[in-house]
Amino acid sequence: MASLVDQLSEVVGGAHVLTEADMVAPYCRDWTGRWGGPAAGVVRPASTAEVGAVLETCRRNGTPIVVQGGNTGLVGGGVPASATAERPGRPPLILSTTRMRGLEPVDTTCWQVTAGAGVTLAAVQEAAGASGLAFGVDLAARGSATIGGMVATNAGGIHVLRYGAMRQQVVGVEAVLGDGRVVSRLDGLLKDNSGYDLSQLMVGSEGTLGIITAARLRLLPASPERAVALLGVASTAEAVRALAELREMTEGLDAAEIFYQDGLDLVCRHFHLPPPLNTAFPVYLLVECAGRVRVADALVDALGVMGVDEHSTAIGVEPSSAARLWAYRELHTDAVASLGVPHKLDVSVRVDMLAELEQAVRRSVRRVAPEATLVMWGHVGDGNLHVNVIGPPAGDDTVDVAVLELAVSLGGSISAEHGIGRAKLAQLALVRSDDERSAMRSIKRALDPAGVLNPGVLLPA
Amino acid sequence: MASLVDQLSEVVGGAHVLTEADMVAPYCRDWTGRWGGPAAGVVRPASTAEVGAVLETCRRNGTPIVVQGGNTGLVGGGVPASATAERPGRPPLILSTTRMRGLEPVDTTCWQVTAGAGVTLAAVQEAAGASGLAFGVDLAARGSATIGGMVATNAGGIHVLRYGAMRQQVVGVEAVLGDGRVVSRLDGLLKDNSGYDLSQLMVGSEGTLGIITAARLRLLPASPERAVALLGVASTAEAVRALAELREMTEGLDAAEIFYQDGLDLVCRHFHLPPPLNTAFPVYLLVECAGRVRVADALVDALGVMGVDEHSTAIGVEPSSAARLWAYRELHTDAVASLGVPHKLDVSVRVDMLAELEQAVRRSVRRVAPEATLVMWGHVGDGNLHVNVIGPPAGDDTVDVAVLELAVSLGGSISAEHGIGRAKLAQLALVRSDDERSAMRSIKRALDPAGVLNPGVLLPA
Repeated sequence: MASLVDQLSEVVGGAHVLTEADMVAPYCRDWTGRWGGPAAGVVRPASTAEVGAVLETCRRNGTPIVVQGGNTGLVGGGVPASATAERPGRPPLILSTTRMRGLEPVDTTCWQVTAGAGVTLAAVQEAAGASGLAFGVDLAARGSATIGGMVATNAGGIHVLRYGAMRQQVVGVEAVLGDGRVVSRLDGLLKDNSGYDLSQLMVGSEGTLGIITAARLRLLPASPERAVALLGVASTAEAVRALAELREMTEGLDAAEIFYQDGLDLVCRHFHLPPPLNTAFPVYLLVECAGRVRVADALVDALGVMGVDEHSTAIGVEPSSAARLWAYRELHTDAVASLGVPHKLDVSVRVDMLAELEQAVRRSVRRVAPEATLVMWGHVGDGNLHVNVIGPPAGDDTVDVAVLELAVSLGGSISAEHGIGRAKLAQLALVRSDDERSAMRSIKRALDPAGVLNPGVLLPA
Repeated sequence: MASLVDQLSEVVGGAHVLTEADMVAPYCRDWTGRWGGPAAGVVRPASTAEVGAVLETCRRNGTPIVVQGGNTGLVGGGVPASATAERPGRPPLILSTTRMRGLEPVDTTCWQVTAGAGVTLAAVQEAAGASGLAFGVDLAARGSATIGGMVATNAGGIHVLRYGAMRQQVVGVEAVLGDGRVVSRLDGLLKDNSGYDLSQLMVGSEGTLGIITAARLRLLPASPERAVALLGVASTAEAVRALAELREMTEGLDAAEIFYQDGLDLVCRHFHLPPPLNTAFPVYLLVECAGRVRVADALVDALGVMGVDEHSTAIGVEPSSAARLWAYRELHTDAVASLGVPHKLDVSVRVDMLAELEQAVRRSVRRVAPEATLVMWGHVGDGNLHVNVIGPPAGDDTVDVAVLELAVSLGGSISAEHGIGRAKLAQLALVRSDDERSAMRSIKRALDPAGVLNPGVLLPA
């Protein structure tokens, strides 16, 4: 019988089956360096049919598959389990979707586009923009993150407040299920109540039910006008209140980000930037409005009614000044990375609990890791905080567990937008009941009975 | 062993198990009089726990359950199969959700509300309005349609264009699955990527996977200003073009309805109304804009740029004049019902195919039912036409099959918003592949292995 590599080469061509250690290595570890392990090789199919044939080959050989898009995930869901983890079977094959990068012409009548799983977010944004439209999701990894991975993980980002996450942008997907059945819902119908929405079931399933090969995506009218305001405030509670006031008074609010004095100081120090305001504040709220007309005027009017003054507010209307204000927020990730490999938690609560979460996280981290550096930022309107802790070694998950348990104790989630992956498997039971986890396992068995897809991701292997 | 009625009475109290023919009858037939059949009785649980106990009782007794909300469905999904239909088992028990009408106080911080399955759409709209908020879905049956049924069927209506269907309003659901496992996702988190979205899987599953007992719903800011315009145009194609132009120029477009000369004449005759415009047109486009400020001005400006004149356009800014224009569209259903029991088809295509669909439906109905009266209306922005045919007897589905096959031949769906129910079971294979129907059956078996929930609805029994 032919070897696995021979069989796979038969399907996708020898050039697209990688087995040499130095070729395979980049696929085996995530970009933060926190997750990864050995793989049997990498296979790079170029079509839905090839994905189906690869899956069949792996089922026949009993070889598990790890599905990988742009490898920008943060919870180890797209890379093999570590060699030290309990792994009864043989090392998995990594199926990379990056060769499926067909991008159909933008449909300007229906405001939609069909993108292969391997198309990057940036490519979709660019195609939409060239047609006078826009895409509803934006996030910092736009140059690498792929549509397939973003759909599979229901990626969020900075515009969830206004447009929702990837789930809301997906009109339909094409996917090969674990058992080889093909779902193909790329017809672009805005209304179609003909049976279970298998496309939506794929969204957020982290490659455990099927391999997404393409998605039909909703586009939005472009917003020619855009205005950004950075407000210094006294507390998270005040940021939440200010956002509520702004939402009452303005239409078109499409981002509301929060960050803190310590993170801002780190950003300014690391990137040699002047502080954004003349006065320092404990908390910063960055809001953006976008729309067709009167966007900046409406924002300035609303801020006037709220009584903010020039000491506590910077406003960016020109693209360059808006980008300058955004940089203070977006550079947080790189600034934190400069301190070491952070423990990254991504928790959410109801918006009215956000201030309590922030305070409780500070207390908790001080208690369990008093020497650690804590930097937080997040999406105020979604009740979502990104918690970064630098200091504790990679293997020590004390601080991770403490923060996740804390979010749960406040009625929140252990994963706002990053997913469960391998990172939060042990905590899934904190937020999903026995019945719910059991129902999830039943669905997994129904669509991937051989358990060939992403074993040990999202659900215990 | 106690009888089924005794066992059910034990669970919900004797007053809530109906078995007398005259009490049961109203639940056995849909409001159009087209669908229905005999039932073993009606059980009316008041809580999730009672629903679970009823389900267990039915599983033990091998009694199938038909789940019913406000009984406003149009495809026979909420009533028993007809006595003549092939029905191997015993008559089903109807589980009515209408006693689960708890409505929690509106959460004005998070813009959400939790409603029991039996709460009517009107009650949710009223509660939202009283808190200065609004609900994103509206439809004519608002006084009877229940939240549980609307979630289970992914109800659409007139605002899908702007806010999406029920799917987009659902933050989470509570449901008892067919095998008794309970899903409870009412925590109101805007972002929660912790596993498969079981809530979304329930949306549109037509009671075949689980019984929804409550839903956490998203609310929207209220739109204090509102303006309606009724445009007379020459064709469906022109209506589609006019809508595209309006979408380019205005924000806040929240409805775009189409109807035709013959339907308008019928409405005016039946309700003794004057025609809306001085001149008659073949096609009418009704658009509504809603928002905070300058709504009417912006709409009038846009219409001015488009060069419409007073002969072809009526504008309603005051609530009374807006309601007067809406009436011409909303009274279509009753006007058609006055002619007899219609064959009602609900088809969708991509927006750029709508004009072709309309023409093709006219030709097709003329061919297969030359004596019939055809009245159409629909939601232009969604590519959705409601096709009403009066004339052919109830048992003759020639025209139904012709229209559904036509929609499919144009790349469309056999059910835009009404669902599959029992009405379109035979046509499901036209729009969902063997693989997709087989995957749907696998999911059904995974969550309702005994097949106790709505057998013969959405999937063949």
